[in-house]
Amino acid sequence: MSSMFGNKLKISIFGESHGKGIGVVIDGLPSGLKIDLNYIEKQMTRRSPGRNNLSTPRRESDKFNILSGLFQGKTTGTPLCATIENQDKKSKDYTSIKTVIRPGHSDYTGFAKYSGYNDYRGSGHFSGRITAPLLFAGSIAMYILEKYKGITIGTRIKSIYNITDISEIKVDDNGLNELKDMNFPVFSVEKGILMEQEILKAKENGDSVGGVTETFILNVPKGYGEPFFDSVESKMSHMIFSIPAVKGIEFGEGFKVSEMKGSTANDQYYVNEGCILTYSNNSGGILGGITNGMPIIFRTAIKPTPSISRLQKTVDISTMKNKTVQIEGRHDPCIVPRAVPVIEGAAALVVLDLIMEREGEVWNLMK
Amino acid sequence: MSSMFGNKLKISIFGESHGKGIGVVIDGLPSGLKIDLNYIEKQMTRRSPGRNNLSTPRRESDKFNILSGLFQGKTTGTPLCATIENQDKKSKDYTSIKTVIRPGHSDYTGFAKYSGYNDYRGSGHFSGRITAPLLFAGSIAMYILEKYKGITIGTRIKSIYNITDISEIKVDDNGLNELKDMNFPVFSVEKGILMEQEILKAKENGDSVGGVTETFILNVPKGYGEPFFDSVESKMSHMIFSIPAVKGIEFGEGFKVSEMKGSTANDQYYVNEGCILTYSNNSGGILGGITNGMPIIFRTAIKPTPSISRLQKTVDISTMKNKTVQIEGRHDPCIVPRAVPVIEGAAALVVLDLIMEREGEVWNLMK
Amino acid sequence: MSSMFGNKLKISIFGESHGKGIGVVIDGLPSGLKIDLNYIEKQMTRRSPGRNNLSTPRRESDKFNILSGLFQGKTTGTPLCATIENQDKKSKDYTSIKTVIRPGHSDYTGFAKYSGYNDYRGSGHFSGRITAPLLFAGSIAMYILEKYKGITIGTRIKSIYNITDISEIKVDDNGLNELKDMNFPVFSVEKGILMEQEILKAKENGDSVGGVTETFILNVPKGYGEPFFDSVESKMSHMIFSIPAVKGIEFGEGFKVSEMKGSTANDQYYVNEGCILTYSNNSGGILGGITNGMPIIFRTAIKPTPSISRLQKTVDISTMKNKTVQIEGRHDPCIVPRAVPVIEGAAALVVLDLIMEREGEVWNLMK
Amino acid sequence: MSSMFGNKLKISIFGESHGKGIGVVIDGLPSGLKIDLNYIEKQMTRRSPGRNNLSTPRRESDKFNILSGLFQGKTTGTPLCATIENQDKKSKDYTSIKTVIRPGHSDYTGFAKYSGYNDYRGSGHFSGRITAPLLFAGSIAMYILEKYKGITIGTRIKSIYNITDISEIKVDDNGLNELKDMNFPVFSVEKGILMEQEILKAKENGDSVGGVTETFILNVPKGYGEPFFDSVESKMSHMIFSIPAVKGIEFGEGFKVSEMKGSTANDQYYVNEGCILTYSNNSGGILGGITNGMPIIFRTAIKPTPSISRLQKTVDISTMKNKTVQIEGRHDPCIVPRAVPVIEGAAALVVLDLIMEREGEVWNLMK
Repeated sequence: MSSMFGNKLKISIFGESHGKGIGVVIDGLPSGLKIDLNYIEKQMTRRSPGRNNLSTPRRESDKFNILSGLFQGKTTGTPLCATIENQDKKSKDYTSIKTVIRPGHSDYTGFAKYSGYNDYRGSGHFSGRITAPLLFAGSIAMYILEKYKGITIGTRIKSIYNITDISEIKVDDNGLNELKDMNFPVFSVEKGILMEQEILKAKENGDSVGGVTETFILNVPKGYGEPFFDSVESKMSHMIFSIPAVKGIEFGEGFKVSEMKGSTANDQYYVNEGCILTYSNNSGGILGGITNGMPIIFRTAIKPTPSISRLQKTVDISTMKNKTVQIEGRHDPCIVPRAVPVIEGAAALVVLDLIMEREGEVWNLMK
Repeated sequence: MSSMFGNKLKISIFGESHGKGIGVVIDGLPSGLKIDLNYIEKQMTRRSPGRNNLSTPRRESDKFNILSGLFQGKTTGTPLCATIENQDKKSKDYTSIKTVIRPGHSDYTGFAKYSGYNDYRGSGHFSGRITAPLLFAGSIAMYILEKYKGITIGTRIKSIYNITDISEIKVDDNGLNELKDMNFPVFSVEKGILMEQEILKAKENGDSVGGVTETFILNVPKGYGEPFFDSVESKMSHMIFSIPAVKGIEFGEGFKVSEMKGSTANDQYYVNEGCILTYSNNSGGILGGITNGMPIIFRTAIKPTPSISRLQKTVDISTMKNKTVQIEGRHDPCIVPRAVPVIEGAAALVVLDLIMEREGEVWNLMK
Repeated sequence: MSSMFGNKLKISIFGESHGKGIGVVIDGLPSGLKIDLNYIEKQMTRRSPGRNNLSTPRRESDKFNILSGLFQGKTTGTPLCATIENQDKKSKDYTSIKTVIRPGHSDYTGFAKYSGYNDYRGSGHFSGRITAPLLFAGSIAMYILEKYKGITIGTRIKSIYNITDISEIKVDDNGLNELKDMNFPVFSVEKGILMEQEILKAKENGDSVGGVTETFILNVPKGYGEPFFDSVESKMSHMIFSIPAVKGIEFGEGFKVSEMKGSTANDQYYVNEGCILTYSNNSGGILGGITNGMPIIFRTAIKPTPSISRLQKTVDISTMKNKTVQIEGRHDPCIVPRAVPVIEGAAALVVLDLIMEREGEVWNLMK
Repeated sequence: MSSMFGNKLKISIFGESHGKGIGVVIDGLPSGLKIDLNYIEKQMTRRSPGRNNLSTPRRESDKFNILSGLFQGKTTGTPLCATIENQDKKSKDYTSIKTVIRPGHSDYTGFAKYSGYNDYRGSGHFSGRITAPLLFAGSIAMYILEKYKGITIGTRIKSIYNITDISEIKVDDNGLNELKDMNFPVFSVEKGILMEQEILKAKENGDSVGGVTETFILNVPKGYGEPFFDSVESKMSHMIFSIPAVKGIEFGEGFKVSEMKGSTANDQYYVNEGCILTYSNNSGGILGGITNGMPIIFRTAIKPTPSISRLQKTVDISTMKNKTVQIEGRHDPCIVPRAVPVIEGAAALVVLDLIMEREGEVWNLMK
């Protein structure tokens, strides 16, 4: 599938960070759904850089231009394409970057795959900037899920470097929406401040830090997903690992569940007002690849930004000689806060695809 | 895709644990490759139950019957189908299982998805038994990778419950092949004994334990995979989460990398005998979704077997009344050792698909 | 996709004519649908050879064995696999066939694609016998369409060699079902007799004839299909050209519509009892790739059976020398009558996939 | 797949005729291929309207804007997106068109599928204008095939209305390239003049005519394609039926082969300078779904343009009352000449996909 994703709701992203433009085609949206573009724009702003001293001071215009698929404010059901123009970049000399591969970046693997013909400027197609169109598509999906299906998706920063947020909060729709309004979404404001300090410390030292996010998806009905190859975990992880810098994912208690006894790990059932619920939610709302109606919960491990101004050992692939490299410029000392809305949007695309697989194209009219 | 997986190499699995038979269709294999069926059988045996007191004493025949796609011992290039007959099951009364949903199992989600029409006997299509045809397909892929591409895949048990294997071993082809010959593949024999004791202790207590596996894939050339939606991590995690009981996956240092500084996390490069290598391998051999030639490493979190003989709270979905359930029968107190070859085979399918995507159908003749 | 087809309803066929067995996996069927196996068997019999002197006297057992996906007579919603065993074949020497390529057959192209490793006995995977599992899957789809959606599919033989059936019949559900009960489904019995005489004449002369079939699909609601790449014509033609010996397809008036003026070709509308109908149906029920509620009509051109006992010029690919070949054995002098149910079944798979794409998995419960 | 097509080379088209813009994403192109944009532009011009009195006097700007995937004149291997802006349209009142459905157009089926929410102005996403991005993608594929694989694709107009071109010409690369340089590509200039007269006559009468095209693809090696569901005919017909107004396709002698005896229809083999050739080419270069190295030949039936200024019977779907409609404006009296390059480009996409499926991503470097 490479740059295309989805079974029933398909997206196709394109662009390089220093090319003319980037964008996304979304195919398979139900027709007749009113989309609030302010909502989309708000999500895009959450991802945009330069909002505070935690992220790169670079300003990028993420102003999207909808070319098709929206008519009189409503989805047409035909492909929706949105593009974002890349503004004129400074005529920086990227020649050195081309051959002196930066550790932790895709320079070397991109060179290998594309035999050196990929656009290497600013990481090209590998750039985190390509998550802007991904988030655009995701925001549309998230809007549809919220408004037409009552599904809420929210994400908090679980940890940054060695600082971990508190764990005891019980999430609900309001709580998740509050997270969305926070610049630095954590449960504990105190822990959040400590995390921000770690980010600033890394920045001062010309270094970077990573972290873990935790995503909650509420009100997905039971019975969605597939056993085996299209399990909810399979589809979700497939999507989440598409986001640059992600190196791990776990559902429910995840790795911790591997340290439990079965008697603890199993989520036992009870009836409440005609609904079947579980006392615990170690499975993260998914059993046998299929939703059980409980909150879907997953955590995502994000590596530290590879762009650091420290001296690093590397190789010049044109000469095959050892070299050192020191990456200049203004970079995010921590990508986690900007990854939060991208993960939410990516998750929304998966959930909407799941729903459309099960309910078909015309579910919205059946309400 | 549901029960089908792959882009160029496609597999389609089918079957229920108490139906007539289970099996797999593998489509897109290169033609003319000699397959050693003893090799396949050996891998199947590694998964089969009843080999020692760590697994269920149930004996299942995993004798496969190749219906097509193999001619004079070589792949034809046309679809290869293998089936495994289910032997006559005891005429046990499964009616209670139908409605009294077992915690941790797929009974409830299967009921929801299939509106109660799925074959509920012995978990039906959700049964771990369906991993036998998956492993069959995986073993063929693994054989091809080993023999025709020099790629080795091996897995060790990283932890069981709260016992963790040592971490200092440097893996090579021989080391991985030795792991494959072990009943309980660990680096430290002492740690392995402690793990086995935990499994037996859980068994005695009518309980179960989970664990973590670590998989190594050696000699995959650089440049395979895709940025974004078909990143190696995306495809691999998609596949690995298809295996029942998996709840987490991480590549390279995974969640631990989120606690590193960028200056530590970045794998720095050097030249060695004309090859570009990295000092560390925190990325697990994958950057920007594409292989860099270093070993691919991932860890898989496996939950405790949900079948335990302890009394558990649940619901009868026919009456919507609270109930208790005590699962009888002979079950695996820990599924991890039997999951090891399945994970290896599943990984092999992904790697072979990656190679065929890049090299086409006739790569084997180009050597 | 090679041996797999479908978006939501996916089928995967496998087998070689002289291997152990052939079969099909059907993935994505709605759950809970009662299937009448007698109905399936009846369709299979329509395809089976040896029923009269118009087809090969070879007897093949098409007894299918359902391994999975059907439980207590109803679809489970999980993959349904059916296999057909190949009975022991006479130990004929196929070595000459391997290298002396038969004109009109796939011997040469199969050799080229699979580098000579394909199973060449009896055409192997290219054998018309592989349409038996295709028809099995198609019969299940057809049964579901008939019983649960009121959709009827029927096919008549439009022409054999230079004899053409009459054209003036208006089709309805009863008419189509009558066609299904005929050994030689034509509108005009007289024309049918003339056609049969041509077939027998060809047989006597060691030759063969082809023909054209016409398929009618009634009661597909309006609004199914897609513009562009998943137009109803795209999906249907994709499937129909999968059937061996098909060389052309046209929808509605097809090639004849290219000789009309727009004022004649356009199907004009009128209202009848609250429904929008067209006076003519030159479009064959499809506009812009989407159904308009009128009957879907298409015609399929089938070439003469390539197996003839006449002396033909060919090449021995092992020596690259010119040769002659005379094909022995008992062959169909005309494949058209046996292709009729296969085309119907194949069409049913496409229509059911269209419906599931639009209505999702649970449409059957919404009635 | 809806608006996406392809296995290894994937394209995704979008846009409505009166929206902001239209375009295409091409994913999976090999990297490092130099593309001559003049070549692309020349093909686009062949499709553009207003070039003579045979087509609509409307002028559309088909100036494409390449946003990504091309760097320093060469393909990067990452997705290539090109957009075409729609110029400001006159503020025509389209309200009547919305409900008074035009015969032969997609107004009614589009309304049904999208529940009335599709952009109805100028046929919206169903507009023939969307073939401009399709041709853009196809031209890139055609350029690659010509330059890097020596494959030539050419199309002639076989017939318009009841005027048929001569049939005796033997095609070669030069002949096909000459066809590409002709405004009205036919073998017989005299027949071409007669065809043009029919088009003008229809135009004068407020009517329209259709026709048949014949496409030749030279130098595709043997062994490409698949048996069954990805037969060359399946993939090609799937694509060609995506082009609006196509109602039939046939390969080789197609429908005529159904009137032959097997002894005539079979293409007999001979050896020539170490190559296996056939005396006739009734199969159109494809046997068993796989190329045999002979020219691929197919014919496409195109219906008369549905837009005619004659009075037609129709229905107002808002009132469900019978109505008449007379379509005003400037329309193509015959779409066939403008369809010619679109068919060639569409065919090129299929052939390039076939090649990449077989040869992988790096074939171009293996030369």
